[in-house]
Amino acid sequence: MALVVHKYGGTSMGSTDRIKNVARRVAKWHDAGYQIIVVPSAMSGETNRLIGMAREIMPQPDPRELDMLASTGEQVSVALLAMALHALGKEAVSYAGWQVAIRTDSAFTKARIQSIDDVKVTRDLDAGRIVIITGFQGVDGDGNIATLGRGGSDTSAVAIAVAMNAKECLIYTDVDGVYTTDPRVVSEARRLNTVTFEEMLEMASLGSKVLQIRSVEFAGNYKMPTRVLSSLTDPMIALEEETVSGTLISFEEDTNMEQAAITGIAFNRDEAKITVLGVPDRPGIAFQILGPVAEANIEVDMIIQNQSVDGKTDFTFTVPRGEYQKSMEVLTNSVKAHIGAASIAGDAKVSKVSVVGVGMRSHVGIASTMFRTLSEEGINILMISTSEIKISVLIDEKYMELAVRALHKAFDLENAD
Amino acid sequence: MALVVHKYGGTSMGSTDRIKNVARRVAKWHDAGYQIIVVPSAMSGETNRLIGMAREIMPQPDPRELDMLASTGEQVSVALLAMALHALGKEAVSYAGWQVAIRTDSAFTKARIQSIDDVKVTRDLDAGRIVIITGFQGVDGDGNIATLGRGGSDTSAVAIAVAMNAKECLIYTDVDGVYTTDPRVVSEARRLNTVTFEEMLEMASLGSKVLQIRSVEFAGNYKMPTRVLSSLTDPMIALEEETVSGTLISFEEDTNMEQAAITGIAFNRDEAKITVLGVPDRPGIAFQILGPVAEANIEVDMIIQNQSVDGKTDFTFTVPRGEYQKSMEVLTNSVKAHIGAASIAGDAKVSKVSVVGVGMRSHVGIASTMFRTLSEEGINILMISTSEIKISVLIDEKYMELAVRALHKAFDLENAD
Repeated sequence: MALVVHKYGGTSMGSTDRIKNVARRVAKWHDAGYQIIVVPSAMSGETNRLIGMAREIMPQPDPRELDMLASTGEQVSVALLAMALHALGKEAVSYAGWQVAIRTDSAFTKARIQSIDDVKVTRDLDAGRIVIITGFQGVDGDGNIATLGRGGSDTSAVAIAVAMNAKECLIYTDVDGVYTTDPRVVSEARRLNTVTFEEMLEMASLGSKVLQIRSVEFAGNYKMPTRVLSSLTDPMIALEEETVSGTLISFEEDTNMEQAAITGIAFNRDEAKITVLGVPDRPGIAFQILGPVAEANIEVDMIIQNQSVDGKTDFTFTVPRGEYQKSMEVLTNSVKAHIGAASIAGDAKVSKVSVVGVGMRSHVGIASTMFRTLSEEGINILMISTSEIKISVLIDEKYMELAVRALHKAFDLENAD
Repeated sequence: MALVVHKYGGTSMGSTDRIKNVARRVAKWHDAGYQIIVVPSAMSGETNRLIGMAREIMPQPDPRELDMLASTGEQVSVALLAMALHALGKEAVSYAGWQVAIRTDSAFTKARIQSIDDVKVTRDLDAGRIVIITGFQGVDGDGNIATLGRGGSDTSAVAIAVAMNAKECLIYTDVDGVYTTDPRVVSEARRLNTVTFEEMLEMASLGSKVLQIRSVEFAGNYKMPTRVLSSLTDPMIALEEETVSGTLISFEEDTNMEQAAITGIAFNRDEAKITVLGVPDRPGIAFQILGPVAEANIEVDMIIQNQSVDGKTDFTFTVPRGEYQKSMEVLTNSVKAHIGAASIAGDAKVSKVSVVGVGMRSHVGIASTMFRTLSEEGINILMISTSEIKISVLIDEKYMELAVRALHKAFDLENAD
């Protein structure tokens, strides 16, 4: 009997009626002979409601207490879903993370899963029960509840699938898969039947936020086949259809290498670019610039250091647009004089566009096609950064949609697969 | 350093502002040198909201899952209260029942506490921390969450006070103590400074529902001094005032026996009376009548069987008014023909009035004063039932307020103490 893990997001669990709908889908799979573990998120809005109360009490609540508070949202979900399955005549049992137990470290609000005990769950599955486990949370070595951070239920689902040796982890969400790019920008965007783990990582981190990135890493590390699909379709469609719908994150690179060189176009609209000009080119300078930025908890994305001229160089990096002001302050107050830079320049209206694909490794000319396409559209490239399976460019934000559409067409993504 | 347990009801915890108020009160006690454990209820309305969702899913949800669901209400409360204490600069830590652990049996939705581990709590108190523990819930031997039923947080507080050997358990609620009777019925009703445990049991079970009855039993069994007082007064009143306010449930019978014979007048408006007429007077007949009633989960209160005449007797008992119809159906369908009764008669518009007091044991004439008073008011007594410290009468509901006021005056309750 094949074991599958189903994960349902907050929208799918958003009301008692929607929970009944989830129960019908789970029951259909169970009727078809699958063993099932379900990992639901908190009902949509619930986590925000709880955090909102905490912030009314104090602006920076203690992380341990925040986790005590926020973890209740998923506990409500698992209990209600168990009841909804009982109402359909199914045997089902719910567990909070600590009951399983899902062991984590003690990094409250951003904990990492260390181990998952399979004893209770195996016993229940063997007895024919559907097992429902809270996402987003576990318990540390001292018995404290620790949550995995926003979107952590995806990670819980994949980790549970790995621990229980499931055949597949199905992530039900409000989109029906991973697309070649955002369909709101390119109407010809096409759903991908499969993406590789590496591509999914790049697509997720570059702004196609279908799955929490840590869950993708987890799936990749343990080669757990993970499928993203929609919970909004009628739960009564044929099961065979559901088992092949959505987008499967696969670990069979070869399959994809036969296909198109480029899998998709990712983008991130809200970037900001900062350049430290006239920096003395000496060892340790990158750390002296970025150390204070990291200490201010600002995430840095692309980093470029130009060839030095006359012992001076320019150092450029990007940050999320919301951190732009803070970054400029840190550099102006703590860095500029200290390292003897000439000046600090910035641009908060830039966007990043990336072409992603494992096929890139064996195909030449991807970069030249990309740069030629942008040039033909008159789009100036501000920064370039590359990895094995992606090429990213920073451009003026006003050209972002144009760039994505042009690249989608240039790489023939509307027809490929 | 004296240890006290504070329990706060749902109204006291009803909003983030009220939670801040609770925190100020707790901080005041801590500043005065007390060690404190706080046991808060769920925010008012929260338990009903959760149970309401469960009922939307199915009418009779599984008790284990109901407990998974309902227990989240108190978990939210403890986390928010810990934050509110942090905001006042206090070290505080919250625990769910399973974290302490508070061990219960597996009677979901009506579990009983079996033991409480003091290790974590002692360590925290010794370190100067305020400890906050969820009321209403514990964990069974298999790691399932089990709740103690409505009002169970009172029981949790007293049980924790017992386990931790506290000096006193303070139950903060929306009334400022136990009164000689309901002040809404008798404006001269007077707050009692002390009541004995037995009196409190009778007062609580007879409708003066200030404390959950099981918590009173618990306090009685372990002789835990328990004080009922108001959380609605300004938390900034002098601490000395607070330590002697409210009503203390005491275990010093002698003190009270010197006082008035009667401590208070309890009443229950919503009673119904059922009489099975012409019952053959043979062994086992009471069980044959009440067995089916108990099986239908109907609680029976007063029971009277008259002297038999010609081998026939009348059997009368009372039930909560809401169970009247169901009781009549059970008797008519399952009992009447089976035992060969002549007929079933009922009256759903009766009320019970009781005089309560440990002093009754050593005073004669309480019953005669009671019956004479009611007679002078022209109130007919339908049933009488007595225990060591109370006399209850059943009367027509339209006379209830009149009876309570007349008895309150006859026993001089507005002046005594």
